[in-house]
Amino acid sequence: MDLPYVPPTRDAALSQALAAAIDNKTKPRGSLGMLETLAQQAGLIQKTISPRLQGASMLVFAGDHGVVDEGVSAYPQSVTWQMVENFLAGGAAINVFARQNGMALHIVDAGVNHDFGKRDGLISRKVGPGTRNFSNTPAMTASECDMALRHGMALVNDLATKVNVLGFGEMGIGNTTAAAAIIHKLADTPIADCVGAGTGLSPDAVLHKGRVIEMAVAHHAHVSEPLDVLATFGGFEIAMMAGAMLKAAEQRMILLIDGFIVTSALLVAARLQPSISDYCVFCHCSDEHGHRHVLEKLDATPLLQLDLRLGEGTGCALALPIVQAAVNFLCEMATFDSAQVSVKSEPL
Amino acid sequence: MDLPYVPPTRDAALSQALAAAIDNKTKPRGSLGMLETLAQQAGLIQKTISPRLQGASMLVFAGDHGVVDEGVSAYPQSVTWQMVENFLAGGAAINVFARQNGMALHIVDAGVNHDFGKRDGLISRKVGPGTRNFSNTPAMTASECDMALRHGMALVNDLATKVNVLGFGEMGIGNTTAAAAIIHKLADTPIADCVGAGTGLSPDAVLHKGRVIEMAVAHHAHVSEPLDVLATFGGFEIAMMAGAMLKAAEQRMILLIDGFIVTSALLVAARLQPSISDYCVFCHCSDEHGHRHVLEKLDATPLLQLDLRLGEGTGCALALPIVQAAVNFLCEMATFDSAQVSVKSEPL
Repeated sequence: MDLPYVPPTRDAALSQALAAAIDNKTKPRGSLGMLETLAQQAGLIQKTISPRLQGASMLVFAGDHGVVDEGVSAYPQSVTWQMVENFLAGGAAINVFARQNGMALHIVDAGVNHDFGKRDGLISRKVGPGTRNFSNTPAMTASECDMALRHGMALVNDLATKVNVLGFGEMGIGNTTAAAAIIHKLADTPIADCVGAGTGLSPDAVLHKGRVIEMAVAHHAHVSEPLDVLATFGGFEIAMMAGAMLKAAEQRMILLIDGFIVTSALLVAARLQPSISDYCVFCHCSDEHGHRHVLEKLDATPLLQLDLRLGEGTGCALALPIVQAAVNFLCEMATFDSAQVSVKSEPL
Repeated sequence: MDLPYVPPTRDAALSQALAAAIDNKTKPRGSLGMLETLAQQAGLIQKTISPRLQGASMLVFAGDHGVVDEGVSAYPQSVTWQMVENFLAGGAAINVFARQNGMALHIVDAGVNHDFGKRDGLISRKVGPGTRNFSNTPAMTASECDMALRHGMALVNDLATKVNVLGFGEMGIGNTTAAAAIIHKLADTPIADCVGAGTGLSPDAVLHKGRVIEMAVAHHAHVSEPLDVLATFGGFEIAMMAGAMLKAAEQRMILLIDGFIVTSALLVAARLQPSISDYCVFCHCSDEHGHRHVLEKLDATPLLQLDLRLGEGTGCALALPIVQAAVNFLCEMATFDSAQVSVKSEPL
């Protein structure tokens, strides 16, 4: 299938113009730290020295995972659809944070094992009633994976005229297991470094989860190409996110990357289009064991370190005001000249 | 003088009720990390399981420092008043971030070496036209220090009916030198660990700044009590902040603590009323060398780590949405019961 092409954002002349604009603001040079890096990045993505955020939105993808049959989660599978209901009713953490920070929230049924019927506010793109158990069979067929990617791309395409900053979130009992397998395969990270407590497993249960992944990886030993890894171990929500991310970067949006599972989707996208990282803001370092490792592999510096491990895109919604602050200082602060503030005069 | 009494916020029964409320929200237990700690803290400060933020405000105190005569800053002293003008015109970083996050911004002339005349938006509480050079004489007299503390308390008292979350910021060329001396004396931190580049000194100039502080500390070797240290090395803006902080904690506000200089003021307040820390949110770890050390001494975990070193209270304004998110999740999220979401069922 034809995937979006994601060009690098580098542009030496624009980068220099952005640096000059940033350094002319009434503050000691470099004193806004990571906000200055973000302002640079936003300018390069938007090809301007006056980047603006428009229509900040969250896409939260939900899907179920056959691998839960192996006892890899602390919560029953029914929590996936119950939490989707919670999203629709406005009672989940992502609802609270998106509301607070003015983000439009879109909930997508990518493949939940539940019949929601036709529901206001739920975008139904169900590829199937959850994936198969990847312990013994690929989680999805190649055509299911393809369908999920296409749905993701189409959803973002529909937003592209109104939105230039897009957060990605997910819900899916069992999906830290899927994400761990993907990260192990694509980032060459040892399984032990990818497996964590998820929603709250005991140490013994974490060991069991690791063994489930080990055996599954051995069973599918021949799989190595990114899309094959995605189809074999992924979830419908992970595949749909990967498609959505590729389209969002093609459309030169700022991509807000949440935690462990969202990063596994990005890893797939980055193996297909390496320049996608230029468009990504890594919103936080999750407390889920393994996220730190994959961020390091991606050479990514996360904005927040709040020991979050909730998913849903909560890290994106919490990080948005920082990204907003970065473009705001660049567009709204006075310059030394305009404010008639004296410049540096090293005393010695 | 009579300083406010700041009681500890601890309350075992309320703490347990808060923990139960937090754990009943539809999320894995503990998965909101530092936001859960913040929600607990806000509840204890406000004596409720439904804390709310009201009238979030910033107080930015400006003052000049005689010690600039020793060549300790990369910028001329005139930048202090020029930046106050920039605050009044709305063009500084703190204006941008306070505006973005809906904080009222109050600019206080605590002792700038400039005649602003009567100006809209500037709160004049000038104790003097800058402090004396503490290399050879105390920066202020005991009665000047007393006046600064009182002004700070009175300013907060005026806000107390409308505001329950208050950020502290500062502007003052030379004030990292004053803050370093205070922190060295009160936290018993080696001078080398307290001295940094400030607004951007060269490594050689940082060494010179360290020697200036060493000699001044030797000159005032007998000084050890918190208020004496404050008067000897402090600035009018630092003293006024310390008074404001004590009153704010007495009024059970949430105190947003910014970077290096604000933390030096807090250190004075904490030596007088140790329980003030219960009311403090440490908004960020500054890139100014020394802030990390003093945060460790205070056993404080900063919310943000964005390599900021600007001051003005910018870290407070940037952290406010995180604090808001903490009280919002506690007040607005559904419970497992209300949302009919299944609870944990450890699989093994």
